[in-house]
Amino acid sequence: MKKYQKELDEWFKKNNWQYWQPLSILARLVEECGELARLINHLYGEKKKKSKEKRQELEEEIGDIIYTLICLANSQNIDLDRSIRKSFKKVIKRDKNRY
Amino acid sequence: MKKYQKELDEWFKKNNWQYWQPLSILARLVEECGELARLINHLYGEKKKKSKEKRQELEEEIGDIIYTLICLANSQNIDLDRSIRKSFKKVIKRDKNRY
Amino acid sequence: MKKYQKELDEWFKKNNWQYWQPLSILARLVEECGELARLINHLYGEKKKKSKEKRQELEEEIGDIIYTLICLANSQNIDLDRSIRKSFKKVIKRDKNRY
Amino acid sequence: MKKYQKELDEWFKKNNWQYWQPLSILARLVEECGELARLINHLYGEKKKKSKEKRQELEEEIGDIIYTLICLANSQNIDLDRSIRKSFKKVIKRDKNRY
Repeated sequence: MKKYQKELDEWFKKNNWQYWQPLSILARLVEECGELARLINHLYGEKKKKSKEKRQELEEEIGDIIYTLICLANSQNIDLDRSIRKSFKKVIKRDKNRY
Repeated sequence: MKKYQKELDEWFKKNNWQYWQPLSILARLVEECGELARLINHLYGEKKKKSKEKRQELEEEIGDIIYTLICLANSQNIDLDRSIRKSFKKVIKRDKNRY
Repeated sequence: MKKYQKELDEWFKKNNWQYWQPLSILARLVEECGELARLINHLYGEKKKKSKEKRQELEEEIGDIIYTLICLANSQNIDLDRSIRKSFKKVIKRDKNRY
Repeated sequence: MKKYQKELDEWFKKNNWQYWQPLSILARLVEECGELARLINHLYGEKKKKSKEKRQELEEEIGDIIYTLICLANSQNIDLDRSIRKSFKKVIKRDKNRY
């Protein structure tokens, strides 16, 4: 993720953009999750209409959410590789506890 | 809320509609919250563009969320007046604890 | 809903409370939806553990979401009965269009 | 992301775990977003209580969301590097259109 975080940060600097404040980025995250939810409901929920295009959109919606999280992380100096490592460790631990 | 719940239920019966399963209604709820989030970000967040129309939309987005909750409640035989009463009591209690 | 909105508003005034700003109420709404999501996943999703208690919690979680929406509506002078009416009309219309 | 996706996939295979169905993963995503929302409200919203611990939690909450998205992506054979690339391209394009 370091590469993506750096690339976006340079893009923001080059364009003289500011990251939004966290509450606004959160609102944006909710908006993006809403679009993913709608798509998942179409693909796998009650309103089934499977199609290839839709599956491509899934790729894009997930990308938009991760993009939003990279903005939040960059604005707060968070290292996403460390974030992901920590979450992975929790899963492994929880599993050990379970068995 | 009883009146709204009953009215919607009769409408569903009359049209021979089925309520969705809870996970699908939840996905719909997330979609509606996403639309509200986008609007709130426009009205009060970084991308400020206040306008009368937008404020009317706010009324509609909140209505759509409550509509979705009524569907969920009806499908699970939940009495929303009891729900709201319980939440009100918690607020009053938390306040009493605080002072 | 008018009764609930008025009751809460009087409670806020009596205690000299201020409604939060919309972006903060939205964050709260997301938090409450997250609790509902967890519960629905327990009750109907992959981690099935049906129980009576859980079903009671469902009543409470939905109540908490509506409570949050009442706060948002009150802070923005929105009449929730009008909101709900509008959403109901849309459903009826969409149905008419469909048949 | 490829490395993370592969690592998790091998972990799932080794433990004989199945990915959840998309609607359940979505519910989990909403739960994780709810935890992030609560934390952001504490750190930057109305209930301000800044602290070092809280900022560490932010790192973890974002990690949990990305972990959930990796599960969703793996279960649907989605290449997250492609997803992120696409979202990045959209931002660059939108910017170009704007200027």
